[in-house]
Amino acid sequence: MDIKQIAKDTAKMLQSYLTYQAVRTVSAQINETNPYVAAWLHRFSTKERIQDGEVYIEQLFLEKPELALRIMTVRQHLAEEMTEFLPEMVSTGIMQANMEHRRQHLERITQLDLSNPSIQESESNSADSSSYETPSENS
Amino acid sequence: MDIKQIAKDTAKMLQSYLTYQAVRTVSAQINETNPYVAAWLHRFSTKERIQDGEVYIEQLFLEKPELALRIMTVRQHLAEEMTEFLPEMVSTGIMQANMEHRRQHLERITQLDLSNPSIQESESNSADSSSYETPSENS
Repeated sequence: MDIKQIAKDTAKMLQSYLTYQAVRTVSAQINETNPYVAAWLHRFSTKERIQDGEVYIEQLFLEKPELALRIMTVRQHLAEEMTEFLPEMVSTGIMQANMEHRRQHLERITQLDLSNPSIQESESNSADSSSYETPSENS
Repeated sequence: MDIKQIAKDTAKMLQSYLTYQAVRTVSAQINETNPYVAAWLHRFSTKERIQDGEVYIEQLFLEKPELALRIMTVRQHLAEEMTEFLPEMVSTGIMQANMEHRRQHLERITQLDLSNPSIQESESNSADSSSYETPSENS
């Protein structure tokens, strides 16, 4: 598994996502002071455009540079605020979710074993036999 | 701006994204050992399904629990590996991108000023006049 490439892709995606959150924040702020511009920003910020944060900012700069500058300031602020607790949140979130999925699975197979033990057997035969290996062995 | 809510949303999105990256990793691994199961996983992993990582894992557990377990292991591993350098990467990425956008903008307005100074003026009139304020003042 190419951790370096995945980290790069994840950082790029996160950068675009924080840009999207910055757009939402700025949009909510100017909605109070200038609903006309907020409506314009809403129309401008289509799903396709906002998919890539950098292309979005670039295009916005050509239309309304002061909005682009403001969104850039907000996303930088968000990035600085997030970095402190985001990694911990994601790690804990995944660990807890994994535990919950395992618990539910255990509950399910225990019930299956009681009612129809043969289901379990045929299920494991149809699947990839090596799938319990740890992923690092194949990468 | 509601930093806490944005952090929560970002963590949830990142959790789903790492699940998606784990699916890609596992898919590439079993493609070598068991192309049949890899093809099945590819069909199962539709864009709609993978949008929410937890729903995806839950549904996969019902079909092929050993694949769900393997993907869960990989995503936890990814989360642990990422946390170390991801925040730095995103912060630096945004800072550099912002600098580059500002540089391009500066270049553009300098050129505009030389060729047609009136464009700048009419542009700033049509936009929200308060948009140069820092975002923290409104939140």
